[in-house]
Amino acid sequence: MSEQSSTKNDVWSGRFSEPVDELVQRYTASVTFDKRLAEFDIQGSLAHAEMLCAQKVLSEQDYADIQRGLAQVLDEIRTGKFNWQIALEDVHMNIERRLTDLIGDAGKRLHTGRSRNDQVATDIRLYLRSAIDDIAHLLRRLCNALIDLAERHHSTILPGFTHMQVAQPVTFGHHLLAYAEMFYRDIERLRDCRKRVNRLPLGAAALAGTTFPIDRERVAKTLGFEDVCRNSLDAVSDRDFAIEFCACSALIMTHISRMSEELIIWMSPRVGFIDIADRFCTGSSIMPQKKNPDVPELARGKTGRVNGHLVGLLTLMKGQPLAYNKDNQEDKEPLFDTVDTVTDTLRIFADMVGAVTVKPEMMRQAALQGYATATDLADYLVKKGLPFRDAHEVVAKAVRFCVEKGCDLSELTLEQMKAFSGLIDVDVLEILTLEGSVSARNHVGGTAPEQVKNAIASLKSRLEG
Amino acid sequence: MSEQSSTKNDVWSGRFSEPVDELVQRYTASVTFDKRLAEFDIQGSLAHAEMLCAQKVLSEQDYADIQRGLAQVLDEIRTGKFNWQIALEDVHMNIERRLTDLIGDAGKRLHTGRSRNDQVATDIRLYLRSAIDDIAHLLRRLCNALIDLAERHHSTILPGFTHMQVAQPVTFGHHLLAYAEMFYRDIERLRDCRKRVNRLPLGAAALAGTTFPIDRERVAKTLGFEDVCRNSLDAVSDRDFAIEFCACSALIMTHISRMSEELIIWMSPRVGFIDIADRFCTGSSIMPQKKNPDVPELARGKTGRVNGHLVGLLTLMKGQPLAYNKDNQEDKEPLFDTVDTVTDTLRIFADMVGAVTVKPEMMRQAALQGYATATDLADYLVKKGLPFRDAHEVVAKAVRFCVEKGCDLSELTLEQMKAFSGLIDVDVLEILTLEGSVSARNHVGGTAPEQVKNAIASLKSRLEG
Amino acid sequence: MSEQSSTKNDVWSGRFSEPVDELVQRYTASVTFDKRLAEFDIQGSLAHAEMLCAQKVLSEQDYADIQRGLAQVLDEIRTGKFNWQIALEDVHMNIERRLTDLIGDAGKRLHTGRSRNDQVATDIRLYLRSAIDDIAHLLRRLCNALIDLAERHHSTILPGFTHMQVAQPVTFGHHLLAYAEMFYRDIERLRDCRKRVNRLPLGAAALAGTTFPIDRERVAKTLGFEDVCRNSLDAVSDRDFAIEFCACSALIMTHISRMSEELIIWMSPRVGFIDIADRFCTGSSIMPQKKNPDVPELARGKTGRVNGHLVGLLTLMKGQPLAYNKDNQEDKEPLFDTVDTVTDTLRIFADMVGAVTVKPEMMRQAALQGYATATDLADYLVKKGLPFRDAHEVVAKAVRFCVEKGCDLSELTLEQMKAFSGLIDVDVLEILTLEGSVSARNHVGGTAPEQVKNAIASLKSRLEG
Amino acid sequence: MSEQSSTKNDVWSGRFSEPVDELVQRYTASVTFDKRLAEFDIQGSLAHAEMLCAQKVLSEQDYADIQRGLAQVLDEIRTGKFNWQIALEDVHMNIERRLTDLIGDAGKRLHTGRSRNDQVATDIRLYLRSAIDDIAHLLRRLCNALIDLAERHHSTILPGFTHMQVAQPVTFGHHLLAYAEMFYRDIERLRDCRKRVNRLPLGAAALAGTTFPIDRERVAKTLGFEDVCRNSLDAVSDRDFAIEFCACSALIMTHISRMSEELIIWMSPRVGFIDIADRFCTGSSIMPQKKNPDVPELARGKTGRVNGHLVGLLTLMKGQPLAYNKDNQEDKEPLFDTVDTVTDTLRIFADMVGAVTVKPEMMRQAALQGYATATDLADYLVKKGLPFRDAHEVVAKAVRFCVEKGCDLSELTLEQMKAFSGLIDVDVLEILTLEGSVSARNHVGGTAPEQVKNAIASLKSRLEG
Repeated sequence: MSEQSSTKNDVWSGRFSEPVDELVQRYTASVTFDKRLAEFDIQGSLAHAEMLCAQKVLSEQDYADIQRGLAQVLDEIRTGKFNWQIALEDVHMNIERRLTDLIGDAGKRLHTGRSRNDQVATDIRLYLRSAIDDIAHLLRRLCNALIDLAERHHSTILPGFTHMQVAQPVTFGHHLLAYAEMFYRDIERLRDCRKRVNRLPLGAAALAGTTFPIDRERVAKTLGFEDVCRNSLDAVSDRDFAIEFCACSALIMTHISRMSEELIIWMSPRVGFIDIADRFCTGSSIMPQKKNPDVPELARGKTGRVNGHLVGLLTLMKGQPLAYNKDNQEDKEPLFDTVDTVTDTLRIFADMVGAVTVKPEMMRQAALQGYATATDLADYLVKKGLPFRDAHEVVAKAVRFCVEKGCDLSELTLEQMKAFSGLIDVDVLEILTLEGSVSARNHVGGTAPEQVKNAIASLKSRLEG
Repeated sequence: MSEQSSTKNDVWSGRFSEPVDELVQRYTASVTFDKRLAEFDIQGSLAHAEMLCAQKVLSEQDYADIQRGLAQVLDEIRTGKFNWQIALEDVHMNIERRLTDLIGDAGKRLHTGRSRNDQVATDIRLYLRSAIDDIAHLLRRLCNALIDLAERHHSTILPGFTHMQVAQPVTFGHHLLAYAEMFYRDIERLRDCRKRVNRLPLGAAALAGTTFPIDRERVAKTLGFEDVCRNSLDAVSDRDFAIEFCACSALIMTHISRMSEELIIWMSPRVGFIDIADRFCTGSSIMPQKKNPDVPELARGKTGRVNGHLVGLLTLMKGQPLAYNKDNQEDKEPLFDTVDTVTDTLRIFADMVGAVTVKPEMMRQAALQGYATATDLADYLVKKGLPFRDAHEVVAKAVRFCVEKGCDLSELTLEQMKAFSGLIDVDVLEILTLEGSVSARNHVGGTAPEQVKNAIASLKSRLEG
Repeated sequence: MSEQSSTKNDVWSGRFSEPVDELVQRYTASVTFDKRLAEFDIQGSLAHAEMLCAQKVLSEQDYADIQRGLAQVLDEIRTGKFNWQIALEDVHMNIERRLTDLIGDAGKRLHTGRSRNDQVATDIRLYLRSAIDDIAHLLRRLCNALIDLAERHHSTILPGFTHMQVAQPVTFGHHLLAYAEMFYRDIERLRDCRKRVNRLPLGAAALAGTTFPIDRERVAKTLGFEDVCRNSLDAVSDRDFAIEFCACSALIMTHISRMSEELIIWMSPRVGFIDIADRFCTGSSIMPQKKNPDVPELARGKTGRVNGHLVGLLTLMKGQPLAYNKDNQEDKEPLFDTVDTVTDTLRIFADMVGAVTVKPEMMRQAALQGYATATDLADYLVKKGLPFRDAHEVVAKAVRFCVEKGCDLSELTLEQMKAFSGLIDVDVLEILTLEGSVSARNHVGGTAPEQVKNAIASLKSRLEG
Repeated sequence: MSEQSSTKNDVWSGRFSEPVDELVQRYTASVTFDKRLAEFDIQGSLAHAEMLCAQKVLSEQDYADIQRGLAQVLDEIRTGKFNWQIALEDVHMNIERRLTDLIGDAGKRLHTGRSRNDQVATDIRLYLRSAIDDIAHLLRRLCNALIDLAERHHSTILPGFTHMQVAQPVTFGHHLLAYAEMFYRDIERLRDCRKRVNRLPLGAAALAGTTFPIDRERVAKTLGFEDVCRNSLDAVSDRDFAIEFCACSALIMTHISRMSEELIIWMSPRVGFIDIADRFCTGSSIMPQKKNPDVPELARGKTGRVNGHLVGLLTLMKGQPLAYNKDNQEDKEPLFDTVDTVTDTLRIFADMVGAVTVKPEMMRQAALQGYATATDLADYLVKKGLPFRDAHEVVAKAVRFCVEKGCDLSELTLEQMKAFSGLIDVDVLEILTLEGSVSARNHVGGTAPEQVKNAIASLKSRLEG
């Protein structure tokens, strides 16, 4: 570990007449959280040095020293032996200082042709690109877990709700696939966002570019970037990509919150459509009988956190003049916490979906309540020639009759039904069954079991693509 | 105009025992704002009817009547003769009722196989697709205005700032192109968002699909949608696309707010880099001398409005169970206001950029203040063999000397400079000029006039692509 | 009505070389929305003129003319005859111009010693003070409606939920009073906010005060303000009060959203605890059986709108330098819409609470499910000497036994219960009844019917206070 | 340190058939952040135990054991010896478990008559009450620092700006006091918020109260609470106080951001009104000359963080049914981070204000630019009898003449001035001086040096009050 005694702000001390105030140092230092970028910082430095060497700005020897030194630094960091110092402000200066301790002048040459402004922008983009790939992978896992459950329940019937009122019967598989479609859109969105993350700011230096003969395309290629940022002022001050990522994350969490809401309601005893395995639940310190769906509740709550981070970043950038301002340092913590929250949540949901016990009997019982097939009756009348608006009115009256009588449509006798419309005949009876209702919605996007199977096939193929 | 006396909630009256409360009617009605969707609603209805006819669900005669009737409705709306009624709740029922007044039973048949849930989702997507195209066009106009000004000032020098302190000289063209790059990214982002807007929900009906033999691909093709929504529950409750659009808009306004901040500062008398033509400014009711940059100020303020709408929509969707809930009606006003705000702002900015008077003398004067070429001196020393960190320290001391003496680096004599490093020689002098500094940053993304020209060419070709 | 032909920006034309651009005029004008302030603007002008006259800055004649003129202007506005002109920018200049048309030079003297900056700040505060009083009144009405229902149901039992799982039985009256307490806190908060709204900015003029011998305390007294703003720069640029009001409103809507969530769940057929009268519900265009709780759903959605406005205003003020900037004009629309939203929502909720039908049988049935009295059993064991943690564990095992057997605790025989703890005896039986459970929670804030009555009395007295 | 081997979720294990999943445990545990509440948790437990003993629910011996045990636990925590365990979920169970290890059965009896739901609500309120007192103290310190600087500069003149354009001369002391007034309002607001924080939830138990004969007023008194929460369901689920505090904090940070914006602009070389001592600034890794106002920039950026937390909490509570849900656990991190951010920022600002060097010459120079006394000229004409609107127009024309001539109003000859109005005479000359202008604004809230002194006296007395 490093033994050098660190003098305060020796990074720029020559121009200053007094050392930085202790509290200021703590307030402005970022190393406590940006050390998470260390591996990416080293990766970026290696690519920068390689290019400087190829461009004859660094000697072969210097480059070799830098490679050796950074390898050791990386090892110290990975093994927890690295001595992080707040007095050195950030991850960049900590690593550079240690490197210089290890290899001398070559370490002092590494910063040639770059600035911390473009360096940190590069580090965050490398970090975020990697995080996006992880999250996209977890979204795929979650989609697959939903597909598995949907396959098992492609013909299990539950009431579809609008306004939390029974609307029409749907298959549980169909319902689950609605979420899979949302998460699939999230994958698409991240894919688009990734293109804009994956551009190289390095070479912008402080803000204007550098006087050294750098080769930015070479660095971009080494680091796997698809393009270079085309304007140096923009390159160092742009945080659009972080905001765009947080907006994508806010949508992911919105979907998680909606699914959580349903899981919680479904597991509430009055509904009882599902149970979640004990290992995903916790109990109460006072009420011995409690088994609580803590995971979906907490995940629903975490939506707030991610929305908040998005607002934080937008507020941060509002009205900032070009180019880099210290405000930008505030980009990291919300970004890191968003990545952590989304990652943990998706991982646990991908597992939890498989631990859901479905209770088809309770679902069926619920579907028989609330006149779920009233629309089918209206459609039946339309097919017999009645204009839809008139059919709607006929059925509305029949439902009101049932409400007052306290019975379901299917419990009316054929005679009672005929009283509402002469068009009604014995063939109405199969129309009013739950199975008849769902099977009849047999088109792309509809709830019929056959369509659920098709939708699964379509989704699988998109997930592989 | 319609003469029928509208009974309250006759849309569903058969099932209800009392009319809707007056206040409830006003609270829940959306026609005051969703009538903006009228043209898109008619467009969607025509495509739906065409398909129903092709599928033999509607007769040729019904379809012809519907075409004729909707043409008349459209004409009444366009000419301001349409009698919008709050008692009919929304744009959809207003139009359907009028259609039925005009053409009778065929009008009552139009709603066959659809619901307002999928109908409104279709209308908003059609509306938003059109709005995105308009906004992308305005972004292009704004980019071009920036490019024009940048071309004229590709070698005009002003101080580049970081932390609002003079950092390094940059060309004004380069500075302007930083904004052009931001707005170009906005175009890219809208292009990606548009793909997800441009999918057809119609056919989802209330939530589960319909029992009629519909052909969704046909409707999609008629309306220019790229795909159909693959899950009916998702189709009626998805508002991701609106949120994604608002997130894109929040970034557009963030860019506008940053550019505004600079315009305002630049026009402040102590800075005086630019002036904005009188026709874009307003005065004061009390201070006769005032000429205020109201447009950029107001635009900067409008960032709050758009960020707020984004938060509103995210909050709206948080924790909503499937499928449609009335909450969703709250999607429209923030979306409409976001479209209006972004559209108006971009239009006025595209015009205003051309009305900016640049004051190169003031810019130059400012660039000579603040040791803008200190980095060039450090780079000079590096090229003479000093490691960068050591060169940085040498220059820092020289700057401190100047601060205490109250002079600029370029005002030091060669002898004075040599006192800081023996490596300094007479060739340092051209290094320390503003022109020397900017020309030396001659790589992709750098501020050199030559690079500004390249960047303009690149941007022009991307804008055309 | 005014016949004068309005020249563009004649308010400050002398200093400008060209008229304002048409689009700029539309973009920067506020009269389309700030005309809502007209009555308050006139009220403020009258108090200002009265003081100027008392201070001998205006003659008695001028003051009389102004009174007469403003009375006519007010009448024109109230009767819809006033000719609002966008070219005159805002409510202030529209009224002043009309006044001058009516009374000549005296009208031109009204603006002596003030600016639109302090004028508009005064108008908004007058407006908001009045809005706060209205909202506090509506909150009181809503509390009273909740109290009425709570009184009727002070001993009606339903399951109390935590994590949407049955926790312990509670009385419905107690549950309703939880909301009344929230809304009462809202009243307290508005009362505190009002103090900060109720301070007079007038006299700050543009930003620095005025050279005329004004008497600000006199104006404050006339207008009912409690204090004058103590710093002119702060007075014209402060919008804290609007933000604080929106934060209060966000909490009101948060409470509304929570209550709405419960109403919606309670009215869902699987739960069925309540019904809401038809006149507060709407139906479906496709599903004839539907009766939807649109009001609580829409209100829940409107939470997003108000949260969004709060964010908008905070974003607006972030980083604004002193003193007035045009950004501030963006304060009005979010504020007005927040006032409207909260006002409409509270009014309709105060009515709707009385239109709720409670279904005690369904509530009771639900309370018998989910081991609601398990905590009572644990407490029973504690009272027999077992430490609480051990008692908790004994009951947990008994519950698990029941879960596996598919029965409730109260269905176990005494012998079966004794197997879990020798401390259990026949006196346990009354402990496990719902009535026994709620009655036993008989302390301040507890759910016992007696406490519900006390709580009602306490709340009534606070509401009157 | 504790030796017991902790079995997973032994808190409620009896009812569960499998241990909690490892990832779930980590996801749902809060001890990593809520251990910050430890001292308050112990404080609350002691008060609870004292009351249970007074009510004869606990024996004297048990109470003595608990006192002794908790004293030891507190000591272990303070000395860093406490063994925090994630498997024990939260601060409460960690402490209770350790207590039971130390004192046996008495430890298991401590939880009698309470639940973690009311326990954590009590802890947070104790924590937040203490934080509010700290923050109010820091706000007072900052006000005093501003007052000190204002006193020294009660007659230093700088240009007052509106729209970043020179408006009227103001005194620097007056300008500083605008911020002091804002921070004073923050103190008022926190004082109001504190009342609502300072109410006792304990006694609500899980949600319905408890069957033990508790004395809530006694506990409230012991802990210094002003009142008890009046409804148990509300008590455990209410997080209004946290949201209200975050809203107050968002305003504090808004004021900080505005002051920061000005400090940054004032220190920018083109403006140069102030300098900030080196110890509050940092430099650049690449540009040796840089001295950056990092503290105000970072503070301005941190506004985003606090606004984000406010949004996070509002989103969290939106639509939550009663009573406690696990979502609520998400209240702590944003609250803690808000407290930390505000505390650190205020502390550093209170110090930094004293480290500001004011440059009166630069301020004066700027005030002489931009026709700062044009309003004084208009007022002069009004006092000579011209209606204000006409006077405004006369001066506007004079200014336009100067703009075209490139001179200031005070540089016009008397003859030139007379050409604009015959009312102008030699006495105009003193009107147009900066000193004349500021001294003339001599009323409550005005910028005259005399008023600055009065304002300081008023603020001092309010700060002491």
